[in-house]
Amino acid sequence: MAERVEIVEVGPRDGLQNEARIIPTADKIALVDRLSACGFARIEVTSFVNPKRVPQMADAAQVLAAIARAPAIRYAALAPNLRGFEAAREAGAGEVAVFASASEGFSRANIGCSIAESMERFAPIMEAAEAAGLPVRGYVSCVTHCPYDGKVAPEAVADVAMWLLDMGCFEISLGETLGQALPKDTGAMLDAVLARAPAEKLAGHFHDTSGRALDNVGVCLDRGLRVFDASIGGLGGCPFAPGAAGNVATEALALMLAERGFETGLDHRRIAQAAAYARGLGA
Amino acid sequence: MAERVEIVEVGPRDGLQNEARIIPTADKIALVDRLSACGFARIEVTSFVNPKRVPQMADAAQVLAAIARAPAIRYAALAPNLRGFEAAREAGAGEVAVFASASEGFSRANIGCSIAESMERFAPIMEAAEAAGLPVRGYVSCVTHCPYDGKVAPEAVADVAMWLLDMGCFEISLGETLGQALPKDTGAMLDAVLARAPAEKLAGHFHDTSGRALDNVGVCLDRGLRVFDASIGGLGGCPFAPGAAGNVATEALALMLAERGFETGLDHRRIAQAAAYARGLGA
Repeated sequence: MAERVEIVEVGPRDGLQNEARIIPTADKIALVDRLSACGFARIEVTSFVNPKRVPQMADAAQVLAAIARAPAIRYAALAPNLRGFEAAREAGAGEVAVFASASEGFSRANIGCSIAESMERFAPIMEAAEAAGLPVRGYVSCVTHCPYDGKVAPEAVADVAMWLLDMGCFEISLGETLGQALPKDTGAMLDAVLARAPAEKLAGHFHDTSGRALDNVGVCLDRGLRVFDASIGGLGGCPFAPGAAGNVATEALALMLAERGFETGLDHRRIAQAAAYARGLGA
Repeated sequence: MAERVEIVEVGPRDGLQNEARIIPTADKIALVDRLSACGFARIEVTSFVNPKRVPQMADAAQVLAAIARAPAIRYAALAPNLRGFEAAREAGAGEVAVFASASEGFSRANIGCSIAESMERFAPIMEAAEAAGLPVRGYVSCVTHCPYDGKVAPEAVADVAMWLLDMGCFEISLGETLGQALPKDTGAMLDAVLARAPAEKLAGHFHDTSGRALDNVGVCLDRGLRVFDASIGGLGGCPFAPGAAGNVATEALALMLAERGFETGLDHRRIAQAAAYARGLGA
């Protein structure tokens, strides 16, 4: 039997969060509902960030309330702080994600605090999540390159990943945010992390800015990782270049995995339909 | 004496318009004020688009009202329709820009109507602008590639450019939106446009998604174009990859032009400072 690889669909969150034009709430719901028919085990639906800072996510609770939930699917939401966590829980998120950076420059620019401070901020979330019985996923961004600090030390990634695991995250998604990693960069980063954490706890999250996302997924597969994030239709890339530079596109990743003989459980025809719908949304 | 080339700074509009995170109004004003010290003759400050669709531009009038205007600089704003034009005029824009596409797919996706319909929409703007004595610049997007329709016929670009010139635009900015043009694509497009319009009426607007923006500027320079759009700090690229894939960065273009012996009138030290400030904004 073919070995299983899970694609975590993050387009409605990571994709749309980077889209400057506001997508109507009904269209977001329709996108998630289309994705629910594709065979994913997890879909990251939205993010409970400050709506004044990211207006696109102002309807997070509405979207989570209105999607047609399939019992087999876990619908996740990102929460940057305890307030976001509480809102996500109240809106019925089945999984919550926290977001850290492996580079100080990106942490300060993106989260507004140092890496250490971001960890302090997560502590009450982890506590509340445990009390609520909600699994927490940890994102680590800038795992090889940072737009502010340049190359990121593999050991720094391992430190942040271990920190998140020790705090109680069930899985760490290693995010190559800039899309500049060569396979050797990804390999060196993974070697450092895998020296301290098992592959079963890790997911790969690649951006395709330089067209190398699938190569980097290959490096992860070779080292035993079996969970990858992707965005339907390549949502979240450059506003004017759909699919060109955002998250690796779900449809491309699903195809690559199928070609390599992995089983994803995804319905390729429905994926293609959802991708076409997603690409129209960015318009 | 060195030949003159003008860089039109479009970062505050074309750059920030694609940024999903809301930049505080005060920071936008501070950015424009820094740019006003750099030596530009024109700065595109903002866009009077629907704030429900693009919340980043909701403070368009506030920004135009609060910037410290240098008498020698023309502060421009984009207006998608007559209502936007009136708002831009009331806010004291010294130049207005309209935005068309050379491809039907992008026109429909981006402007919500066919190319011909977009021209009809511009007619009342041109009339009102003439009455108000305001110069109107015409943007043509997707001059070589369209994310929806693929390759764009050079003749289609010439058609739209001539349409805009005939309607009264004083200058046409030819936008290579996707950043995928090879120099030969740009050359073929220019040949078609230059067969019908003089180089003095044309500006080049390139995105650096594939790292070829400066090569394409070179093709334009060889054919006599002397006006180019750029965004300080490469604003307007991928949200997570400052400078990687947006408009060609003003500082990079200014340097390239200086190396080629052109005079831009820009203060390179102040440009560098403004670029550093701009890069911090996207954070």
